[in-house]
Amino acid sequence: MSPLLESYAAGRWFRAADDGEPLLDAATGEEVARFSGRGPDIAAMVRHARETGGPALRALTFHERAALLKALAKHLTARKEELYALSVRTGATSRDTMVDVDGGIGTLFSYASKGVRELPNDTVVLDGGLERLGKGGTFVGQHLYTSRPGVAVQINAFNFPVWGMLEKLAPAFLAGLPSIVKPAAQTAYLAELAVRQIIESGILPEGTLQLLAGGPAGLLDELTVQDSVAFTGSAHTAGILRRHPNVLDGGVRLGVEADSLNCSVLGPDVRPGDPEFDLFVKGVVTEMTVKAGQKCTAIRRVLVPGPMAGTVIDALAARLAKVSVGDPRNPDVRMGALASLGQRDEVRKAVDALRATAEVAFGDPAGAALLDGDAERGAFMTPLLLRARPGATEPHDVEPFGPVSTVLTYDGLDEAIALAARGKGSLAASVVTHDPEVARTVVRGLAPWHGRVLVLDRDDAGESTGHGSPLPVLVHGGPGRAGGGEELGGVRAVLHHMQRSAVQASPDLLTAVTGRWTAGAARTEPDVHPFRRSLAELRIGDTIASAPRTVTLEDIGHFAEFTGDTFYAHTDAEAAARNPLFGGIVAHGYLVVSLAAGLFVDPAPGPVLANFGVDALRFLTPVKAGDAIAVTLTVKQITPRSGADYGEVRWDAVVTNQDGAPVATYDVLTLVAKTWPAESAPEA
Amino acid sequence: MSPLLESYAAGRWFRAADDGEPLLDAATGEEVARFSGRGPDIAAMVRHARETGGPALRALTFHERAALLKALAKHLTARKEELYALSVRTGATSRDTMVDVDGGIGTLFSYASKGVRELPNDTVVLDGGLERLGKGGTFVGQHLYTSRPGVAVQINAFNFPVWGMLEKLAPAFLAGLPSIVKPAAQTAYLAELAVRQIIESGILPEGTLQLLAGGPAGLLDELTVQDSVAFTGSAHTAGILRRHPNVLDGGVRLGVEADSLNCSVLGPDVRPGDPEFDLFVKGVVTEMTVKAGQKCTAIRRVLVPGPMAGTVIDALAARLAKVSVGDPRNPDVRMGALASLGQRDEVRKAVDALRATAEVAFGDPAGAALLDGDAERGAFMTPLLLRARPGATEPHDVEPFGPVSTVLTYDGLDEAIALAARGKGSLAASVVTHDPEVARTVVRGLAPWHGRVLVLDRDDAGESTGHGSPLPVLVHGGPGRAGGGEELGGVRAVLHHMQRSAVQASPDLLTAVTGRWTAGAARTEPDVHPFRRSLAELRIGDTIASAPRTVTLEDIGHFAEFTGDTFYAHTDAEAAARNPLFGGIVAHGYLVVSLAAGLFVDPAPGPVLANFGVDALRFLTPVKAGDAIAVTLTVKQITPRSGADYGEVRWDAVVTNQDGAPVATYDVLTLVAKTWPAESAPEA
Repeated sequence: MSPLLESYAAGRWFRAADDGEPLLDAATGEEVARFSGRGPDIAAMVRHARETGGPALRALTFHERAALLKALAKHLTARKEELYALSVRTGATSRDTMVDVDGGIGTLFSYASKGVRELPNDTVVLDGGLERLGKGGTFVGQHLYTSRPGVAVQINAFNFPVWGMLEKLAPAFLAGLPSIVKPAAQTAYLAELAVRQIIESGILPEGTLQLLAGGPAGLLDELTVQDSVAFTGSAHTAGILRRHPNVLDGGVRLGVEADSLNCSVLGPDVRPGDPEFDLFVKGVVTEMTVKAGQKCTAIRRVLVPGPMAGTVIDALAARLAKVSVGDPRNPDVRMGALASLGQRDEVRKAVDALRATAEVAFGDPAGAALLDGDAERGAFMTPLLLRARPGATEPHDVEPFGPVSTVLTYDGLDEAIALAARGKGSLAASVVTHDPEVARTVVRGLAPWHGRVLVLDRDDAGESTGHGSPLPVLVHGGPGRAGGGEELGGVRAVLHHMQRSAVQASPDLLTAVTGRWTAGAARTEPDVHPFRRSLAELRIGDTIASAPRTVTLEDIGHFAEFTGDTFYAHTDAEAAARNPLFGGIVAHGYLVVSLAAGLFVDPAPGPVLANFGVDALRFLTPVKAGDAIAVTLTVKQITPRSGADYGEVRWDAVVTNQDGAPVATYDVLTLVAKTWPAESAPEA
Repeated sequence: MSPLLESYAAGRWFRAADDGEPLLDAATGEEVARFSGRGPDIAAMVRHARETGGPALRALTFHERAALLKALAKHLTARKEELYALSVRTGATSRDTMVDVDGGIGTLFSYASKGVRELPNDTVVLDGGLERLGKGGTFVGQHLYTSRPGVAVQINAFNFPVWGMLEKLAPAFLAGLPSIVKPAAQTAYLAELAVRQIIESGILPEGTLQLLAGGPAGLLDELTVQDSVAFTGSAHTAGILRRHPNVLDGGVRLGVEADSLNCSVLGPDVRPGDPEFDLFVKGVVTEMTVKAGQKCTAIRRVLVPGPMAGTVIDALAARLAKVSVGDPRNPDVRMGALASLGQRDEVRKAVDALRATAEVAFGDPAGAALLDGDAERGAFMTPLLLRARPGATEPHDVEPFGPVSTVLTYDGLDEAIALAARGKGSLAASVVTHDPEVARTVVRGLAPWHGRVLVLDRDDAGESTGHGSPLPVLVHGGPGRAGGGEELGGVRAVLHHMQRSAVQASPDLLTAVTGRWTAGAARTEPDVHPFRRSLAELRIGDTIASAPRTVTLEDIGHFAEFTGDTFYAHTDAEAAARNPLFGGIVAHGYLVVSLAAGLFVDPAPGPVLANFGVDALRFLTPVKAGDAIAVTLTVKQITPRSGADYGEVRWDAVVTNQDGAPVATYDVLTLVAKTWPAESAPEA
């Protein structure tokens, strides 16, 4: 008997008391593992996540969490051959396995990178700018994302057991939420192996990842308002989850990624022989055959201009005819098996429904001409292309979760958009066109109905990842029938797991709450110039207020000549007087900020290493000859960079004139050594 | 008989065939109007919104929509006395009416202003930066918000018939969604008057606002995946809406703002005599008495340190004793009537439930000592303060929607946060403290459970709008029991009504889709310098590529001397050599951008009026003496300003060195005349 899959629950591996049911190799029908519905104590798992995993995770900054994800990605990379070896048993070809295993690991790397580059080295995220709530500036507002003290439950589909798990785990982990993962039984052996590798690595804090290799019964009963469920699977199961009282009335957040009747539109500009014609045909065939069409994002509806239908079908048929189907262990096989005989039955049922209003344009609904493999015990199915009759409704309602697509015809872009919309909300759409107007019209028309829209043409085809590939930096999920959830999308997915709140306070107390200096808050002039303080010594609010410097007409003229910026407003008094905004000669904005730097810089070598940028520079009041400008520079945010012996300091800069009016405001970005004089000791 | 309220449906006023039921003056019991449950043809209303209102609205840019909201706000301001006169019949004092009427109009003004300042003069919004999806830069991603081709249904509560309607209408309108408003019957006469004023103004395009003064039966049946419902009211009704099949399975988006057991925390640092002590007491009494406590955001739970309970209760009681209750027509009355006798019954029932584990600390649950008014026919109730016994659960579960609060005690900040969390998610919380550590700990602890957290102290009290006031620029809504919705929050609320999608394309086609120039897209060098083109003539992608200029050691030394920026990396070869990032003398970043301006500027008077700012400047490669830099400036975005004879042009600037390596990247912001030479003709 094959091994019984175990759960990782409340800090230990749990084995059910019974022998479970067999899980079969998709291609050979041999037993791979056994799966028991009698899972561990779910209440204890949720408690463990809340009491052990959550607090440990939330004690780390986003950068520290990102570093753990990166370490995890490296660890899994080193052990991916084991995952490859097991993945073939799901019916996956090596191309399919790459999508699942390498795709999953790549998602970890992507989140690790985004977490460091786009999130602060802190535990809260500021959302948007400061809102002045009173004229005096004593009452201000700031939106803030904080981590929920809850649990993220992830219920995954059978088709991508590794990627599907990691793409949900990564943003939840970054957001500070411990995860409980429930894989689909069908391919749970692969998810279990990945979790074993993760747990054995010891990289993730205990309690931040648990595996429920068992039935989901009772899982939602344990959840409350700070918890969330991310579900990928059928609309039917999604409907059951939506009806759980803890979702309906208990505030549990449910995100769903379910059925989706994605479409690909061939632009009316495309003719046979155009590069886009071949790209379209190739794209449809790829989406039909990768993972044997068992992809939520696969193209189910092929929308082509009426007069092109025959030509497109011929080209698709020719290409589909070359797809070899069989046991994925055979390297010549291009398309493997469906996940199980049961899955194949489901697809065949969907095909029967579709055939009520569609003809078979290519393939044999019953047959499975195999290059290699056991046609009896393996869940094989050959690609099937249908052509819908005019007015058919089934293609917009029935999702055949296998290598099946239906060709529909449209007359004009409005009808193409209307047909796409009949899917009632989908994950992904594509339009293949080289015409800018077609691209603009179709994308703007499809966007409200889709989470992602791909425009494919000769220019991006070489680098395009294709219609069906969710990318970690782009939102994955779609409105309506597709479930209404949002996954992935870089930092968006992290914030999706957090709570956004508005905070109202005085600038001083808002500074205390956020850990970032707020305009209007107290400034401190330290004994030494703040440029002489290392990252470890600098404090939020440290300030240098400069002496004034008078800007002369000679300064302006000289700067114009020196830089070559002889714009008339700086050089020609008569013309400048006619400028409706200035009414006379003004200093260059670049002169103002250059002089401001001269006023605030401390020249001798010290911990400030470089100015690497400026943000949000606005010139508010023109500077005229004779005006005296001064600058105040204040430490706004301090971000140690892990792995470097310096960090980033963001300074608030305000240049004022002799009347105290603001002339320019901006943020100055500098790199500052963690210690000074530089130490050779390990960094903080 | 008083007039029967009418619906504004499908372009005309609809009057039900029956006489309806009477709506009574809250203070006098007299009939104000009649309300029939037999409403108009709801399917026709939804169709009218979809087919007439939506297309008209989506043909306008955000700036054009904002201008209409501003005109509407002015129109209602001119007619607000009519609204005031009717508002008193809801039981509202003039202070209460200000919150409703002026608050509602202020929300329109705020959205009008945000719409112009923070949204593009376009119909789509870009979300986040460009994502490079391939190393070659031919395949890129951009998130985009588009308007949904749907309907926004708004089901409002009885307590703020004007504000409650306008705070939902404004962001939906900006987002391009036509609204169908269903007011609560109780105070529907005031909502109907406001809608009459709006419709009579002719400002809003036909079909963008309809009024359903009738029963909601069948309303959700008409909605589909692109539609949304925003509901304010009881958790019970919210539960019914959540169970509608079109919400559960049909993709209709439902936002809820329901029961909320908001709390205010007195910081452990506060002592009697501190300004914060009085602020706390005043805040609690205000929240208990404004609108007779019928506010979703009112303070229901008063959390104080155990030893302070007696002192706080005494101070609250003393202040509550001065609150005069009665007919709001009497100017000496500070607190008016509840909305109806039925509402008062509800509150009394809640008080009975609370008294199971709480003592009356101030007030008489049965009595209503009135300054003025008919105690029989008016829905009066005097303020009631309860003190919970240790371990009481009712205060965390029962919402008395009237002038009732319960005092609870805590021991340490952790317990204060835990008690607040027992509300299972609330709209608003406040903490009154002058201690930065208390503010930080409590706000970070409360934030995951709240949509808004106010920190009140001596510094912001003068300008604070108080615990209970939602502000248009801040998110309104809370997790869990509070409904899980998000309303208001400036542009956040607009985007909340739109669909976010990821678009993948080549830079050229992405530029066509977004209407904004994308890095990597084609550049066009026009016959004339682009600074010689007016806003009307400029095109996305217009470019000036400069000749190179060599930066000499003398330039760097001279710039240092001239500006005073003698930072060692620019002036001291030996010290600069030791800088870990530069390894030798480098040009100032400000010198680089100043020289770049000298390279791209066209000096003679022309349509470019001013450079008003720079965004996202990053210095990527140090410039050393002898390097030759050149700059390419490309039109990225063109934003006409309505009401001005110029607009904004955002230019993409890239400075490169002699090797083609990027030295600096940034956006240059300029004001450009709409026509040149300037015309006196009306602007475009």
